[in-house]
Amino acid sequence: MNLLLLEEKDFLPSGEARISGRRHRQLRDVIKAVPGKRCRAGILGGMRGHAEILACEEDLTILRFSEEDPPPPPLPVTLLIALPRPQTYTKVLNCAVEMGVKRIDFINSFKVEKSFWQGSRLSQEYLDNELRLALEQAADTVMPQIFFHPRFKPFIEDELPGLSPGAARIAGIPGAEEVPERFAGAPVVLAVGPEGGFTDYENGFLLEHGFTGVGLGPHILRTEFAVAALLARLSIRSF
Amino acid sequence: MNLLLLEEKDFLPSGEARISGRRHRQLRDVIKAVPGKRCRAGILGGMRGHAEILACEEDLTILRFSEEDPPPPPLPVTLLIALPRPQTYTKVLNCAVEMGVKRIDFINSFKVEKSFWQGSRLSQEYLDNELRLALEQAADTVMPQIFFHPRFKPFIEDELPGLSPGAARIAGIPGAEEVPERFAGAPVVLAVGPEGGFTDYENGFLLEHGFTGVGLGPHILRTEFAVAALLARLSIRSF
Repeated sequence: MNLLLLEEKDFLPSGEARISGRRHRQLRDVIKAVPGKRCRAGILGGMRGHAEILACEEDLTILRFSEEDPPPPPLPVTLLIALPRPQTYTKVLNCAVEMGVKRIDFINSFKVEKSFWQGSRLSQEYLDNELRLALEQAADTVMPQIFFHPRFKPFIEDELPGLSPGAARIAGIPGAEEVPERFAGAPVVLAVGPEGGFTDYENGFLLEHGFTGVGLGPHILRTEFAVAALLARLSIRSF
Repeated sequence: MNLLLLEEKDFLPSGEARISGRRHRQLRDVIKAVPGKRCRAGILGGMRGHAEILACEEDLTILRFSEEDPPPPPLPVTLLIALPRPQTYTKVLNCAVEMGVKRIDFINSFKVEKSFWQGSRLSQEYLDNELRLALEQAADTVMPQIFFHPRFKPFIEDELPGLSPGAARIAGIPGAEEVPERFAGAPVVLAVGPEGGFTDYENGFLLEHGFTGVGLGPHILRTEFAVAALLARLSIRSF
């Protein structure tokens, strides 16, 4: 936890915050909170700063928050990704959210197994918890939005045009040219296929709908590392 | 498995190969091997090509291999990384090997827990298996070398100079300038700290020994994604 994520509802009218549950236990066991100790904190959807511990009780910690700086800038990437198997799904969420993505659309694809759509990890409760953990890792405060689209073509044809009207569209396609420099730092819709890749039909469909194929070089990466590598290239600002 | 990894010892004098164990089961259960079916294959340390299944028996598969192309070029990066906790260690191995790193040196650092050095995952047996799986994922055939250095300073002072004499040295240091373009594609020694980062003393020591600090932007990534993102930037050839 690189940042303690606070919410408006944690605050008392006095301005102090009371937290319990996971965050309380983490402060107690990892940060070794004692009165007077400070740690990085932020308000969900708001500013970052420091929390000063005022009291540590059995089941709750009381603290005072002071604002300092805004959250890190978001990465202007909308990630469309074929719904991965459950463990990979969690890794992709972690990776994309840590790297500053604020919108992820999980889509269907021929090679997505039907059972993946039934997983408990798609629940709002699971997502709420995982997304908070990823924000705390990244020292970010802005909650990303996650959507699920169990139909591939209607999503690309009917919904995508309204999502990111001015954004470039690129799709990870093995063997395509590596991410061209012009996309770095620009608003981009990035499509990533399932294990084994999009089918030829799906690749053709994406290309017909304005996507440019981009590759990652000669090695074949598992999904979460392909996402990390593509986002790392898209986030370059200093080149 | 994007490539079936064969070894010289799998081959019979007739030129056919017989495989059993994990690879046999994967061919049978995942590739659904039947006589006449082909799959991508490669010789450990050698060429890639295709394997044609000749026979599938209860405990072994017999196949014929034909050479086609060399393995993908290695990434000219030596990764020095503070030994991570066991699960993260495996993810770092997977990521670096899939991205083409051929030498990884796990080093000590103040924040590395002593118990990490006792883990069963440091055994040659564990490594042999994991490295093969990562090569099969990446469609690579060249086995990387893995080393362990339980002392930080002697390694940096005495051993490092002989390892990669002409290579640039860079170290991931939060807040430093993002990976400068001049390092992309060049031989590089990349140092990555533990969870929580190198200490100020260690950072100073690295800078004194010729390392340039490089950052990854405003978000704090967990170790395996930081490695993926740094390697992705170092592997750029088209910018």
